Amino acid sequence: MTFPRFTELVESLPATVPFVGPETQERARGRPFDARLGANESVFGPSPRAVAAMQEAAAEAWKYGDSTSHDLRHALAAHHGITPEHVIVGEGIDGLLGYLVRMLVAPGDAVVTSAGAYPTFNYHVAGYGGALHKVAYRNDREDPEALAARAAEVDAKLLYLSNPDNPMGTWHGPETILALLDALPGGCLLVLDEAYVDFAPAGTAPAIDPDDPRVIRMRTFSKGYGLAGARVGYALAAPALIAAFEKIRNHFGMTRMAQAGALAALRDQDWLAHVIAETAAGRDGIARIARENGLSTLPSATNFVAVDCGRDGAFARRVLEGLVARGVFVRMPGVAPLDRCIRVTAGRAQDLAHLARALPEALAAAEEAPAEG
Amino acid sequence: MTFPRFTELVESLPATVPFVGPETQERARGRPFDARLGANESVFGPSPRAVAAMQEAAAEAWKYGDSTSHDLRHALAAHHGITPEHVIVGEGIDGLLGYLVRMLVAPGDAVVTSAGAYPTFNYHVAGYGGALHKVAYRNDREDPEALAARAAEVDAKLLYLSNPDNPMGTWHGPETILALLDALPGGCLLVLDEAYVDFAPAGTAPAIDPDDPRVIRMRTFSKGYGLAGARVGYALAAPALIAAFEKIRNHFGMTRMAQAGALAALRDQDWLAHVIAETAAGRDGIARIARENGLSTLPSATNFVAVDCGRDGAFARRVLEGLVARGVFVRMPGVAPLDRCIRVTAGRAQDLAHLARALPEALAAAEEAPAEG
Repeated sequence: MTFPRFTELVESLPATVPFVGPETQERARGRPFDARLGANESVFGPSPRAVAAMQEAAAEAWKYGDSTSHDLRHALAAHHGITPEHVIVGEGIDGLLGYLVRMLVAPGDAVVTSAGAYPTFNYHVAGYGGALHKVAYRNDREDPEALAARAAEVDAKLLYLSNPDNPMGTWHGPETILALLDALPGGCLLVLDEAYVDFAPAGTAPAIDPDDPRVIRMRTFSKGYGLAGARVGYALAAPALIAAFEKIRNHFGMTRMAQAGALAALRDQDWLAHVIAETAAGRDGIARIARENGLSTLPSATNFVAVDCGRDGAFARRVLEGLVARGVFVRMPGVAPLDRCIRVTAGRAQDLAHLARALPEALAAAEEAPAEG
Repeated sequence: MTFPRFTELVESLPATVPFVGPETQERARGRPFDARLGANESVFGPSPRAVAAMQEAAAEAWKYGDSTSHDLRHALAAHHGITPEHVIVGEGIDGLLGYLVRMLVAPGDAVVTSAGAYPTFNYHVAGYGGALHKVAYRNDREDPEALAARAAEVDAKLLYLSNPDNPMGTWHGPETILALLDALPGGCLLVLDEAYVDFAPAGTAPAIDPDDPRVIRMRTFSKGYGLAGARVGYALAAPALIAAFEKIRNHFGMTRMAQAGALAALRDQDWLAHVIAETAAGRDGIARIARENGLSTLPSATNFVAVDCGRDGAFARRVLEGLVARGVFVRMPGVAPLDRCIRVTAGRAQDLAHLARALPEALAAAEEAPAEG
């Protein structure tokens, strides 16, 4: 008998990590990155009001956070024109995806996503024993029709779609999402990950009846609001689904600083508008640097840009490694043909100067390297 | 077909909440509590250095926290004289208990705890479908021999014991814990919850070989270190068990402020010593107030005191409600005969003044109230 007696499921899981953090890479390379453009964080920072609110809350850190995130949840409801019963606040979208998968996915249950989409969702599905079915991207976009068709084929309980998409930055208009909703097979819930929707063209987020039971929308303070390190996500769905989180969630899981910071960030929409403008400028800067190096970029409705390195995944991997070696933290998609690209987060002028310095050298080194395999 | 298609297990769970938070109670009563003595928080606050570290980290909140909590984990290893591979940092003991139960408990698996012990552990066990077997306290202490015997009877995968105990504040010496380890049936892991051990007499925490596979110890920054609102717990166990958390944990679940605050708190052992001394004085103050009202208290090795209201649970419940109505937030054990007590967190002079004011009135009101049922 092995000991401790893990469940069969846990015994079968690999000790995988969805992402290696930049701090881990910095320790391995022995020095910090010059530019941190790999995790789609907002280098423009959170609202100064959010920082001040967190600093004030820090002095009260001896108190547990409010288990219902009452004030934040009510403010979010008002912001979205819905009721607090349509909103659940959680420990980042990662935390909420974990709860959602746990609620719906028993071992063997079918789940559909796109090949190359968010690894942490896949991690949760695997962690609860789900059978993950992957659909190819089409023209660098997730393929709603093919996803719905696959969901019907495999009787999926969940269909994951990010709009705008990570890691490619592409997006669908609201009519396509609404059509997907109508194309969903019975019994399948759409997980619409809108982490990046703040950066998308106005109107990208479709108008969906808040009581529509077919969909749960995931939002976050980690991207536009610049609070990745505070771990605040929220989900919007029909009250019956929102209420079910109460059965399993970690009721006292939110930190007091996160609750205060997110509330202040939500109230500072001017800062969000500032970040969106800076982010657009940062995307343009990445595209310009790419062009100067003979590379093209994909249009993006997010805070990052997929830079097409023009060859295969092995080449792009060498470019990425060259950038990392030169102090520029970036990441890349994990599957072909998406992996011909590297993914660069929109940065400030000083961040992009490092990219502009390092990219020609990284490309030259990637050209010189012997092809592997 | 119901929709969404929840798992059978989740469908069967009640939407229970282990604890109703004080903010929820404050909203219901329409005004804040005068004294917050119900959640065993440290009213003496965190180290000013921890506050400063969190405030500094707040400005960097746009960055995800380090997914490995490297610096904190290494500092904890040095503090305990073990290796970082013996330590996992997580989102409070609550979060770590959830992970642990998930790793070991499949539907129907047996788990043993004491009747009246930590409700959040029970919540997790129920949440994963475990069969919870409860053993009575003996003389207001958890009963290690009976717990081990029950674990053998039901072939338990997990045995939960808190030492010092919550909610009674009582404790066992190290030799009793070591004897329990040796009495554990094969295949049973001891979850030794030492959340309150910082307040216990020196030597209460037993010397256990860090590689001993039979036990996992839970520690927290929520109590002595005064960081309940930052959500930082950690577990100490043999490396094979610690490594298994990597399979399922939320790798980016820790906030950057929490990591910085806990590290600074750990480095300020003088503050911890100050809090322990203040807490002892607070316990004495509670005992004195109880005595002045004709009530006895239990000896405590924690930051709270169980005040014996001298009659049954219904009476103690009325006393508690009387205190709450008079602005003093306290809690009480949930099962007989423990529920003859109310549980009061050690407070400052100003907190205890509110208790001293409210307790005689609450007792008088409880005497007058008609016995229910």
